[in-house]
Amino acid sequence: MNMNVWLYAGLVGGALSILAALVNYRKVLQYDPGSERAQEIAGWIRAGASTYLKLLYKTLIALAIVFGLILAVVFAGVEKQNHGLLTAAAFAFGALCSALAGWLGMKVAVEANVRTAVACQDGVPQGFNVAFKAGSVMGLAMVGVAVFGMSLLYLIWKDVEIILGFSFGASLLALLAKAGGGIYTKTADIAADLVGKVEVGIPEDDPRNPAVIADNVGDNVGDVAGMGADIFDSYVAAVVASMLLGASFFASNTISFQYVLLPLLLCVIGIISTFIGLPFVRVGKDDKPGRALNFSTVFTCIVFAVLTTMFFIIVNLAAGDDPSKQLNWGALIATVAGLIIAVIIGFTTDYFTNDEHSPVRRVAEISSSGTGLTIITGFSYGLISIAPAVIGIVVAMIVAFFVSQAFGLPGIYGVGLAAVGMLSLTGIVVSNDAYGPIVDNAKGIAEMSGMSHDVVDRADTLDSAGNTAKAITKGFSISAAALTVLAMFAAYCEGIEAYSKKALTLDLLDPLVLAGVLLGCVIPALFSASLMLSVTKNAFTMIEEIRRQFKAEPGILKGTVLPDYTKCISIASSGALKALIGPAILAVICPLFVGFVLGPGALGGFLGGSIFTGVIFALLMSNSGGLWDNSKKYIEAGNFGGSGSEAHKAAVVGDTVGDPFKDTAGPSLNTLITVMSLVSTLFTPLIAVWHIFG
Amino acid sequence: MNMNVWLYAGLVGGALSILAALVNYRKVLQYDPGSERAQEIAGWIRAGASTYLKLLYKTLIALAIVFGLILAVVFAGVEKQNHGLLTAAAFAFGALCSALAGWLGMKVAVEANVRTAVACQDGVPQGFNVAFKAGSVMGLAMVGVAVFGMSLLYLIWKDVEIILGFSFGASLLALLAKAGGGIYTKTADIAADLVGKVEVGIPEDDPRNPAVIADNVGDNVGDVAGMGADIFDSYVAAVVASMLLGASFFASNTISFQYVLLPLLLCVIGIISTFIGLPFVRVGKDDKPGRALNFSTVFTCIVFAVLTTMFFIIVNLAAGDDPSKQLNWGALIATVAGLIIAVIIGFTTDYFTNDEHSPVRRVAEISSSGTGLTIITGFSYGLISIAPAVIGIVVAMIVAFFVSQAFGLPGIYGVGLAAVGMLSLTGIVVSNDAYGPIVDNAKGIAEMSGMSHDVVDRADTLDSAGNTAKAITKGFSISAAALTVLAMFAAYCEGIEAYSKKALTLDLLDPLVLAGVLLGCVIPALFSASLMLSVTKNAFTMIEEIRRQFKAEPGILKGTVLPDYTKCISIASSGALKALIGPAILAVICPLFVGFVLGPGALGGFLGGSIFTGVIFALLMSNSGGLWDNSKKYIEAGNFGGSGSEAHKAAVVGDTVGDPFKDTAGPSLNTLITVMSLVSTLFTPLIAVWHIFG
Repeated sequence: MNMNVWLYAGLVGGALSILAALVNYRKVLQYDPGSERAQEIAGWIRAGASTYLKLLYKTLIALAIVFGLILAVVFAGVEKQNHGLLTAAAFAFGALCSALAGWLGMKVAVEANVRTAVACQDGVPQGFNVAFKAGSVMGLAMVGVAVFGMSLLYLIWKDVEIILGFSFGASLLALLAKAGGGIYTKTADIAADLVGKVEVGIPEDDPRNPAVIADNVGDNVGDVAGMGADIFDSYVAAVVASMLLGASFFASNTISFQYVLLPLLLCVIGIISTFIGLPFVRVGKDDKPGRALNFSTVFTCIVFAVLTTMFFIIVNLAAGDDPSKQLNWGALIATVAGLIIAVIIGFTTDYFTNDEHSPVRRVAEISSSGTGLTIITGFSYGLISIAPAVIGIVVAMIVAFFVSQAFGLPGIYGVGLAAVGMLSLTGIVVSNDAYGPIVDNAKGIAEMSGMSHDVVDRADTLDSAGNTAKAITKGFSISAAALTVLAMFAAYCEGIEAYSKKALTLDLLDPLVLAGVLLGCVIPALFSASLMLSVTKNAFTMIEEIRRQFKAEPGILKGTVLPDYTKCISIASSGALKALIGPAILAVICPLFVGFVLGPGALGGFLGGSIFTGVIFALLMSNSGGLWDNSKKYIEAGNFGGSGSEAHKAAVVGDTVGDPFKDTAGPSLNTLITVMSLVSTLFTPLIAVWHIFG
Repeated sequence: MNMNVWLYAGLVGGALSILAALVNYRKVLQYDPGSERAQEIAGWIRAGASTYLKLLYKTLIALAIVFGLILAVVFAGVEKQNHGLLTAAAFAFGALCSALAGWLGMKVAVEANVRTAVACQDGVPQGFNVAFKAGSVMGLAMVGVAVFGMSLLYLIWKDVEIILGFSFGASLLALLAKAGGGIYTKTADIAADLVGKVEVGIPEDDPRNPAVIADNVGDNVGDVAGMGADIFDSYVAAVVASMLLGASFFASNTISFQYVLLPLLLCVIGIISTFIGLPFVRVGKDDKPGRALNFSTVFTCIVFAVLTTMFFIIVNLAAGDDPSKQLNWGALIATVAGLIIAVIIGFTTDYFTNDEHSPVRRVAEISSSGTGLTIITGFSYGLISIAPAVIGIVVAMIVAFFVSQAFGLPGIYGVGLAAVGMLSLTGIVVSNDAYGPIVDNAKGIAEMSGMSHDVVDRADTLDSAGNTAKAITKGFSISAAALTVLAMFAAYCEGIEAYSKKALTLDLLDPLVLAGVLLGCVIPALFSASLMLSVTKNAFTMIEEIRRQFKAEPGILKGTVLPDYTKCISIASSGALKALIGPAILAVICPLFVGFVLGPGALGGFLGGSIFTGVIFALLMSNSGGLWDNSKKYIEAGNFGGSGSEAHKAAVVGDTVGDPFKDTAGPSLNTLITVMSLVSTLFTPLIAVWHIFG
């Protein structure tokens, strides 16, 4: 089989996915946008989101130009022709692609929110339909743009290292989008709650609150654009890491050429599976929307496994007796192992964050004895929740490695495939995930525009399904990112060995490696702290602004005068972007510093260390945050005294603590470790040769 | 020089230290024990502490018999004669020694508390004098017993591996004492506060509270016996790790024999330095007691550096031109590097937990905007506080390694010496540390026995000095433990290589090693969670008991009937001991499981992983806990609204969260990683030969 066929399949698959996204986008626009009042509110959210995105993309363009220039200049000296310029171009292209998909996702989310609210007037299934269709725009666009972009770059330059630039661009954007969005959304959320609910006692999503629009914008920029960029980033990085490993083993004649492209082709199969899976996501009149979302994940998973197996059979039948054209069954097993374990990890996360199981209920129960116990217990369950996910990652890694090896493939290449297998679900996972903030917004709009109580309740049903789906997505995306960076980690080492022409061992008994690991372990802690302190600082500023408005214009609280929403929006936007500078520099400079000063071995250790604690903190924060949130909701549903009880007050504090845990720091750690791995891998040609120690 | 002289120096030094402890013990007993009322209260605390210690030691004896038998049987097959039996005996001896020192420390603490309160009637310096003298009993006994025990064992059997058994015994006791004491103290503390202060509104240390005696007992069992055992454990482990490394390099003819015993001799110099330093710890009429404690640390440190340098000069002059009898200057530099960095780390910890610096003040300030922000901000500063300590550990390791190597010593042996250097301050550090709970108790007794307001205030002054000293001690002991386990980690690898007769590389790219690291990273999280959940569970039980007593006998709250203190004491005691079983098994079984199943490489990785996250979580929890505690105290001192304000309420929650962080989970992690390292090293003869994978 001509390998170009695979690349064309990538182009076509990607293009079709983008097309499907656009079709769904149009369909969403055709739904009823509702009353003038509802449209007005949605318009504010839309405008706020645009303001932020414009600022974000401006920052990004500035950063991209700086990094692009640096890459172009620094790599000008590397042996291959035009390597610097091409890497820089691919970098810009990667950032652009990710931005494009994020922009489309946001665009549809801010149209779909109001339409979902309106559709809820007819019933839960109708509302679900609009929101999920809108979510799928993001999911489809994301995988489409990624696969199309990577296939195109490879088709033109036939060099995986160029695609590495693409991945780095996507990753850097993801870091900015996710961390910035995370800070934005929680700044607004916390400030709106603390002044609105606690100080002046107006309900959530009350239009008299000057921060209410910023809060709703936050859902979009944090959970749609941010989370989308984050998964885009892991998705591309997993494919690139596997392709790099494939190319490296192909160069050393260990494996044949098709393995370089296999990861891309698995993505195409993932797209096809998503096409097949999406129409099956339906909610009947009495069905639970949460179940529909989970079903979609599992169903797509099965479709993917079947299609991939069929693909392997067809290729091997077509290859006949030519072993260089056959595909190794070990590769199939590794891929499917990753896939299965991704689902298992997602569901164990569910155990810790779903109110049907004991951790959430136990935290709700103990809340009646004091806020301190709420925090300690939730935090402890968060610590425990790390274990199943890490064991899952270890099992996936060990199985993928040794099975591949047993079948004669390089073990680490199998680990890369397991990561690709995990992420093959990206289309459907992002669809599920983008659904969440849309229904959350819909609920807000329903409330603010004074729709009937029934409508708000239906939107709430949709919302709580979104929360569970979101928790599962996070467990899944952290694990996938972990496996991805482990593959990227190996790719880094392969790169160092290739350029330094020496074997690299990352022996923990080597003091430089150990120093690297210890320093690497600290980075995720500093990064999370920096993001969370930004949230509290910005929330503080916004709280003062809200108080100022209430004081300056008493008509606001009476409901006769509109508050100045834009002021809060601009505090959240500029605060978030300013807060990004430190973490972004941390992510890029630290690995380079360690690499050029302490040497490639220390940098390897550093990446390892950052992965270890990065994964642990990400799981801890995401899961404990989700648990606190759902404990609060469980109490609000009337348990242990219900809303207003002592238990509820304690649970609200738990939720406030959990907010920046689960929506700011936790999920941003993914992108942090990916960016650090990519920076290091990108700079292997230089670090391998120039360094002070080691 | 005959090496036996060094061993006799160890015996004599150790014995003198024990003697000095006993002398100070007698001196403490000679102080005025105060009024009948005060003595009665002190008697309750004393009885409660005895009850718990008896239970603890019973558990320990049971465990020691089980482990001793296992060791004796398992190691019966090892080539050396009687290895199993001797290891078992040394194990029991180690546990006994640590228990003895802890028992003496407790014994004097429960006598000194009331005498300190009485002495406070004369003034702050008088009170300080009693408390510090009592604290020094623990410090001197600890190092004395350790050095005497190790010297004796080596003198008889001339085999470091036997001392390894001693160290394991001390460590297992430390795990039980520290984790059990930590659970005990926080169970009582939280329960007493939540019902007493919050529900019925009686002050802290009010004799009407049924949990008040348990709370005061808790200070002794957690902070005296527990913390003492913890540092004893690191102290012995550091010496044993260095001796093992020395013995291993001596066996391969890399270094001469004196390096095997040098670590022991450094301890003797440490004892002498403590003798010199102790009399200088005095508080003038207007001096701050905190400054006196810090001064004592720095002063002893300088004395130790000077004495060690003199010792090196004398030995080298005496050795003349015989290089086999000279001491390498690299060893001196490594030792002093460890010492200096220990002090630096202690003081950076101080930055994050002292109310004279911005983190504590910032958390106090933000508390007025809501409890959620208190938690997030404190937790974030805790995350940041990890960085300086880890950088310190890395610098100490790198300097010790490369300087030793440059001078021709094996680098890793230098790292072991740096750990010994850090821990050479143990005598003074434990003295400072045991001072804390004694003055805390004194304050309680002063309050309960109705001494004048002035006396309580003076006791409070002493108490806050104890808090700062305690924070520094924790930063110091975590760092020292980290360096110790790094040396032990190397000793483990040397052991595996010696017994398997193959080189061991812990390459992070080896999937089994990586799997080990990832699994190891999870253990400290599970361990902390298990301890903290025990605290909340036991506190819950005790809260119910307190409520029951108040309800059954209304006379208690009126102050006419005494509550049943023993009930709360027995809930705390038995709850703590029951809760220990899980964590203790975790600590012993997990490394053996990984070693025998996944092999020695995976176990090496596992130890590494547990060290990485163990150190990180220990620093995070200890420092954020200390920070919250002092933020609360800062508000209570009249800032940001003072006691009773919204800020204060938020800070109280922060303190409740911080309690199990800093006094239960955080410091127990030290002993966890030491126990796991020791178990692994002890089992090297078996694991090197028998394992399924790897």
